[in-house]
Amino acid sequence: MDTIRKIISNISTPDYKLMEKAQGRLDSLTKPQGSLGRLEELAKQIVGITGIENPEFKNKVIFTLVADHGVTEEKVSAYPKEVTAQMVYNFLNGGAGINVLSRYIGAKVVVVDIGVAQDLKAHAHLVIKKINYGTKNMSKGPAMTRQEAMKSIETGIEILEEEMLNGIDIIGTGEMGIGNTTASSAITASLTKKSIEDVTGRGTGIDDKTLKNKIEIIKKALRTNNPDPLDPIDVLAKVGGFEIGGLAGIILSAASKKIPVVIDGFISGAAALVAYHLEPKLKDYMIASHCSAEKGHRIILEHLGLKPLLDLDLRLGEGTGAALGISIVEAATKILTQMATFKSAGVSKKNKL
Amino acid sequence: MDTIRKIISNISTPDYKLMEKAQGRLDSLTKPQGSLGRLEELAKQIVGITGIENPEFKNKVIFTLVADHGVTEEKVSAYPKEVTAQMVYNFLNGGAGINVLSRYIGAKVVVVDIGVAQDLKAHAHLVIKKINYGTKNMSKGPAMTRQEAMKSIETGIEILEEEMLNGIDIIGTGEMGIGNTTASSAITASLTKKSIEDVTGRGTGIDDKTLKNKIEIIKKALRTNNPDPLDPIDVLAKVGGFEIGGLAGIILSAASKKIPVVIDGFISGAAALVAYHLEPKLKDYMIASHCSAEKGHRIILEHLGLKPLLDLDLRLGEGTGAALGISIVEAATKILTQMATFKSAGVSKKNKL
Repeated sequence: MDTIRKIISNISTPDYKLMEKAQGRLDSLTKPQGSLGRLEELAKQIVGITGIENPEFKNKVIFTLVADHGVTEEKVSAYPKEVTAQMVYNFLNGGAGINVLSRYIGAKVVVVDIGVAQDLKAHAHLVIKKINYGTKNMSKGPAMTRQEAMKSIETGIEILEEEMLNGIDIIGTGEMGIGNTTASSAITASLTKKSIEDVTGRGTGIDDKTLKNKIEIIKKALRTNNPDPLDPIDVLAKVGGFEIGGLAGIILSAASKKIPVVIDGFISGAAALVAYHLEPKLKDYMIASHCSAEKGHRIILEHLGLKPLLDLDLRLGEGTGAALGISIVEAATKILTQMATFKSAGVSKKNKL
Repeated sequence: MDTIRKIISNISTPDYKLMEKAQGRLDSLTKPQGSLGRLEELAKQIVGITGIENPEFKNKVIFTLVADHGVTEEKVSAYPKEVTAQMVYNFLNGGAGINVLSRYIGAKVVVVDIGVAQDLKAHAHLVIKKINYGTKNMSKGPAMTRQEAMKSIETGIEILEEEMLNGIDIIGTGEMGIGNTTASSAITASLTKKSIEDVTGRGTGIDDKTLKNKIEIIKKALRTNNPDPLDPIDVLAKVGGFEIGGLAGIILSAASKKIPVVIDGFISGAAALVAYHLEPKLKDYMIASHCSAEKGHRIILEHLGLKPLLDLDLRLGEGTGAALGISIVEAATKILTQMATFKSAGVSKKNKL
């Protein structure tokens, strides 16, 4: 817990003075004031987070954390559990959605086994930080121990710190794990106090019967474990997942190091929720890339007070929405740093109305 | 009119057979079916428009058409009319918003003087297709003659055809012209039959008093000229602008050549409206990049039945939203052409539910 506490104590408020300066610069550019809307807000936010007047994203990194979920025993997913490990090899071979979009935006994908249920073949680009061989079945008892929950967050902190040696200017969160919308719905219901029905969707595409079962299983898990909503680590331990804890750690760690965090969809949102309940100041460091087609995500975004950049009915995860979001944020910084001013371009200013 | 008629007769329906094939490919990729939402729809649409199974955007082009508006005499804008010409030089020097975003997405900006009120200095990258030195004051009589309106559309057709010699795989529409939200509101009210109040906004940022005056001037223009909503060329002539007619021509021309068109904001939307009323089949070729903060734009999008990709409160024009939109569309095509299939990646398929 000391590591987590230390990271949290290092999270400061954004640099408001520099943000004001950025606003002045934005208002001097050859466009009507405010006419680039949210791009201007994003540029200012990035200046505030990084404390850099002319931010530039040389190193964009998507962290795709992978883990298994014991609750898949209960037939809550449309895909067999083996897909989790199979997808890791797909990530490493560059064939998954996140690989394609990361290549397109010029980002690196860091693939981490934080709890896959089988041993994976070593690979130069696979980071192995396995906490356990998947979580336990949360409908029968806690998904993990409190120690494991804390370790998953600490592992996230460590993953970010290790990758910082290669340089990081902005990150996106991503994940993969059959069964992880079930865990995310349980976390969301617990921390936002919404009904389980309101936060539970079709995940990878389950039918009505499976959805009904999924809702019952989540109800059973919350009844059996009774997680304490005032203690996010308890919630994570009882109904969470290793990739969710890991991402919460990555988000906390990034904020403590003044690195902007672009949040992907529902599962990343659940991780953001856990992190935010540990330290609300985090909100200023997070950018919501998109609103997922998975229904609980909108509730998370409202709870966090974040407005998504994109609404493209995505529900793949992996970090795919975050990758597109990073490209919008990068475009925003280019506006700030590359546009001409009224003065430099010799353009007349607004009439006195 | 013969040129316009000929172009329209060349617009066919998308290649539905190839779209079905693309759907088959999308469903074989390593992701739950449909989980990339609108990216999948976009990829399919691009295949249908281009008739190419594996589309690739080597040449992305934004057309930024510039013209002046006689109605600025009536003090409808927050900026002096001289800004139109000054911004052309800013475009040519690479300092405007559209330059920054086009560089970011790897697109070329084609800047066209189609009706600036003064002669501009020659420049290697300035296309001069001036129809007249700005339109006339539409509150006192027609903005242009019917001949000029047709010529503006024909000029758009010509601009696209000339640029095709350099190669074009996708285009974005853009414009600049002090006073052109006034013309666009008048066109929108006329063609969608909505009230002037519903389609008139603050443009570059006018105050309440100026907005009231702007609405009165548009009412006067429609009363004085009485454009025929069944004749889009009449509407364009009486209350339009040269850049709006030019963009309508570019859109028609692109569709006839199977080139996807990404529409920018309100003024581009008014051009799309004129083009659509000339040939409704156009709709399949158009992609709405964003929903502008300028209120009439949402009404245009509803009228055209287009759902915007982005909602970032942009209201700059120039093609800025279209540039960001093109990057989303390009990402969609990469998904289609670069992702691994379940078979090639050895990933298990969905359970039989």
